[in-house]
Amino acid sequence: MQPYILYYWPSIQGRGEFVRLALEEADVPYRDVAREPKGMPQLLAAIDPAQTGYPAYAPPVLKAGALLIGQTATILLYLGAHHGLAPRSEAGRLWCNQLQLTIADVVNEAHDSHHPISTNLYYEDQKKEAKQRSRDFTAERIPKYLGYFEQVLQANAGRGGFMVGSRLSYVDLSLFQLMEGLRYAFPKAMARQQAAWPGLLALRDKVARRPRIAAYLASERRLPFSEEGIFRHYPELER
Amino acid sequence: MQPYILYYWPSIQGRGEFVRLALEEADVPYRDVAREPKGMPQLLAAIDPAQTGYPAYAPPVLKAGALLIGQTATILLYLGAHHGLAPRSEAGRLWCNQLQLTIADVVNEAHDSHHPISTNLYYEDQKKEAKQRSRDFTAERIPKYLGYFEQVLQANAGRGGFMVGSRLSYVDLSLFQLMEGLRYAFPKAMARQQAAWPGLLALRDKVARRPRIAAYLASERRLPFSEEGIFRHYPELER
Repeated sequence: MQPYILYYWPSIQGRGEFVRLALEEADVPYRDVAREPKGMPQLLAAIDPAQTGYPAYAPPVLKAGALLIGQTATILLYLGAHHGLAPRSEAGRLWCNQLQLTIADVVNEAHDSHHPISTNLYYEDQKKEAKQRSRDFTAERIPKYLGYFEQVLQANAGRGGFMVGSRLSYVDLSLFQLMEGLRYAFPKAMARQQAAWPGLLALRDKVARRPRIAAYLASERRLPFSEEGIFRHYPELER
Repeated sequence: MQPYILYYWPSIQGRGEFVRLALEEADVPYRDVAREPKGMPQLLAAIDPAQTGYPAYAPPVLKAGALLIGQTATILLYLGAHHGLAPRSEAGRLWCNQLQLTIADVVNEAHDSHHPISTNLYYEDQKKEAKQRSRDFTAERIPKYLGYFEQVLQANAGRGGFMVGSRLSYVDLSLFQLMEGLRYAFPKAMARQQAAWPGLLALRDKVARRPRIAAYLASERRLPFSEEGIFRHYPELER
C-alpha cells in the first residue's frame, strides 16, 4: 500500500491534528508532507483548482491512493471506514460523523474566541471583542457542548467507556484532542468546571494511554500547542 | 415506507432548509413535525438525551425508520445515498460531503456576521461588532468562498452544469440555498460582485426551475427568509 499523504500546515496542530491522531492510532504509513523539505509546494498544489479536479478549500487534505479528500470530518469518515475506527453499520458510521461535526462546531467556536471579528486581523486588533466572546465561550458554550458529550458518553456507559459502541472510534480520539485543546487554552475555566464531566476526563486519559497514541505524544511528530493554532492560551481571555 | 420525520424550528428556514430542499427534490413523504399541532414536544424529545440514545446537539434532526440523525451534513449524507442525490461511488460521496461541509462553513460565518460575540445576546447588543464582522464577511469571505465554488463548478463544466458529476446532487440544492440566503442578507454586496460567479448564478436558476423545487418554492411549505433565521437582512450591515 502507498503511504497516505497528509497536507497540513507544518508548524501547528490545528485541524490537521484530528487526522494525525487517527493515522497514528490506525498504525498506517503516512507522510506529513509539508514538514518534509520542499513539502510546502505540494501542500499548495493540493488546494489549487488549477492542479487538481478535487481542490479542497483549505487544509487538511489527505491523499489516499487516487482520492484527494478535504474537510477534517470527511477525512475521518474515510479513515474510520477503512481502518476500523468507526462501526461498520450505517447507523454507527452516521452517528460518528454526527458527533464529529459537533466537535467541529466547538473547534470553530474555540477559534473565534480569539478571532471574533476577522481571520484577516491580528488577535491584538480584536482583543476587546475576543475578551467578550471568550467570556461567553467559557461560561456558556463549553459547558453546553461538554455537557452534551458527557451525556452521550454516560448513555453508552458499561460498554467500555467509549463514545460509540464498545470499541474505540475516531470520535474518542477527537474528543481527546478537544479536551487537551480546551485545557491548554482555558486552564482556569476548565479546572473550575471539570467536576461536570468525569467521563470525558477518563476518556481523555484512556486515549492518552493507548500504546500508539502514547508513543505519538512522546515523539517529535506531536507538535506543541501554540498561539499560532486554533487553541490559544491568552491569559487575559480568562478570569 | 414510513414517512420521514423532520424535526426543526417551525418558523424559520435555518439549517433545516437544506434538509427540506433535499426531501422535496427526492419526492419522498415527510412530516415537518414541529409545524404540526403539538409538534414542538416531539422536536424537543428528539434532542433530549433522556429520551433517545442518539440525541442531537441541536436541530435539524431526521427520523428515518429506526435511525435518528442530526447535523445537516450527516442527514444529507444519508439522503444522498438513499435517494440518488449523490454519486454511488465512494469518491463521489466523499466529494459531496466535503463540499457540503464547506457550504456549512459559509453558513456558520453568515450567522456570526450578525452574532459575532454571542448567540445569547440580541443582535442589537452586538451591532457595532456585527458591522465590523459583516464588512469582513462581504469583502473577504464571500468572494473567497464563492470564488472557490465557482472554480469547482467551472472545472466540472460540460457535464451539465452541476457541481458533482453529471447529475444533480444535494450539493447543488445547498448552493442554491446559500446563494438565495446571501442575496437576501447582503443584496448590495452580492449584486456588486456577481460578475465573478456566473456559473453559480446559472446553477441557482437551474435548481429553481426544477419542477419539484419550483412547486415547493411556490407552496406554503417554503417559509420566508426573516431576521429570526441565519441569513438576516440588516441594511446597516452593508455599505
